[in-house]
Amino acid sequence: MSSKVLIVGAGAIGGFYGGLLAKAGAEVSVVCRSDYHIVKQQGYRIKSHALGCWQFMPDQVLRDAADYDGQADYLILCSKVTPDIDRVALIRDAVAPQTAIVLIQNGVEIEEELQQAFPDNLLISGLAFICCNRLAPGEISHLAYGKLILGNLSDSHEPKTSHLRDLFLQAGIECVISEDIVASRWQKCVWNAPFNPLSVLSGGLATQAILQNQENFVRRVMQEVCSIAEACGHALPADIVEAHIALTRDMPPYKTSMLLDFERGHTMETEAILGNAVRAAQRHGVDCPCLQSLYVLMQLRELQIRSNSLLN
Amino acid sequence: MSSKVLIVGAGAIGGFYGGLLAKAGAEVSVVCRSDYHIVKQQGYRIKSHALGCWQFMPDQVLRDAADYDGQADYLILCSKVTPDIDRVALIRDAVAPQTAIVLIQNGVEIEEELQQAFPDNLLISGLAFICCNRLAPGEISHLAYGKLILGNLSDSHEPKTSHLRDLFLQAGIECVISEDIVASRWQKCVWNAPFNPLSVLSGGLATQAILQNQENFVRRVMQEVCSIAEACGHALPADIVEAHIALTRDMPPYKTSMLLDFERGHTMETEAILGNAVRAAQRHGVDCPCLQSLYVLMQLRELQIRSNSLLN
Repeated sequence: MSSKVLIVGAGAIGGFYGGLLAKAGAEVSVVCRSDYHIVKQQGYRIKSHALGCWQFMPDQVLRDAADYDGQADYLILCSKVTPDIDRVALIRDAVAPQTAIVLIQNGVEIEEELQQAFPDNLLISGLAFICCNRLAPGEISHLAYGKLILGNLSDSHEPKTSHLRDLFLQAGIECVISEDIVASRWQKCVWNAPFNPLSVLSGGLATQAILQNQENFVRRVMQEVCSIAEACGHALPADIVEAHIALTRDMPPYKTSMLLDFERGHTMETEAILGNAVRAAQRHGVDCPCLQSLYVLMQLRELQIRSNSLLN
Repeated sequence: MSSKVLIVGAGAIGGFYGGLLAKAGAEVSVVCRSDYHIVKQQGYRIKSHALGCWQFMPDQVLRDAADYDGQADYLILCSKVTPDIDRVALIRDAVAPQTAIVLIQNGVEIEEELQQAFPDNLLISGLAFICCNRLAPGEISHLAYGKLILGNLSDSHEPKTSHLRDLFLQAGIECVISEDIVASRWQKCVWNAPFNPLSVLSGGLATQAILQNQENFVRRVMQEVCSIAEACGHALPADIVEAHIALTRDMPPYKTSMLLDFERGHTMETEAILGNAVRAAQRHGVDCPCLQSLYVLMQLRELQIRSNSLLN
């Protein structure tokens, strides 16, 4: 099976997973805007705590998906999911009939927009559990974790999905196929929904401090997310809240992705994580007042960031 | 009736109301710590948008209530209500048998601590609706409003309370006696409970912007406070939420007291306003998840402020 891969939104995460696929023998190209010049000249230097250091020289380095020369087997979208990014427009010009569209993105219910735009393409929904930073243009540091979960929205076992998993495994990273990727997204949301906004709204507290001081509230938000997932037909394991709490206790103090975005003055994934969960709750008549409160506050925060950036 | 008054916590609000009582002929002394030297030398210069400018030279300017020479008829406590201020210790040494203890302070259920410490003294509970700033040591600017509501926790009509009201009226400021001062506190809390924390947690949005963007949430928090007040036996007027919303729409953009404290790096009245309301709800089995969420977030904020100030 051929493996022409185009990574769109090739920052730290896209560059890292792209670099792994290149290691496994795929022909990997990237669309990267901000670091275009450096990456075009010298590719990526990737330093991984677990997989050593290597140079990743993409086959094509592009500013825009429209410039892609060829037909991708996999188009892997790694951008953030925020209202200011039009994901369909970002990839449209590089989607060929045989292209599988792979999302390595946060949030719940983020697939429909792409399914509607590309109804005839295979959609692989993916979640990355990774701590990975961009140190400088073209320089990526992989600090911890790395596991990928992939899945198809239909139940069918797609050979293209298995092949992609095999490439990642070959490159040395943990990768599994979920029979219910939607439930996997909700599971991740159980953790993200309290800790991401609480880290921002508290003014930058690490996950440990949040848990030590407001465990009951964290549990209540987690429970609300479980109720929404269940109402959506994706009941989560009964011990999921306990498992997430225990995991967080054992984690090193951790800055959430929303907190990192916030500290950089970037738009946060408020809508993909909180907004979509709250809208799913409303659709199913599930009351989620604590989650809703966090969503309200994050919307006000985003508003304040935008009004500050307009002033500057 | 004699009128020896001691103001404890004579910042902007204490200095302003003390200055009014002095204008009305009372013998007013002050305990003020931070601006002691300036106030001792030159008193207060008060500039009011409504009542002109005047010099207020206190009878005694003290660092500590224990230094008060005489027996006060009224001891007016104007400090903030925060866990780091021991209000009983602050006033104990100046409370004589005939001293009426007057609180001009924010929050709900803030009287009990003082009632227990001084069970034989008359307690007058008061609320100030005022916009009043300290411009410099000993310099007070009264910008807007100014109304005082006073009341006794028992139903009885206390002549000392009426006399104090008359002094304020004489000095030209609106002052009324509430038949149910506890309900009046809850009424003020209906406004404070959403807008104070939302202004801080949003990163500094003014009341107008909060209302324009999250009116439904503001209403839900207000409604939760109404339910708590009712469960405490102090049902509020049916139109209180509408009235507060309409009032806020007509107010000029306004920085809440919590936001001002936050911007100055001071402890905020999280416990007096939100904590006491949530504890009252718990006592009466009232669910208030949105208020609770705001309380949780403000506790985390206060924690973050304290950990920052320990680092500095």
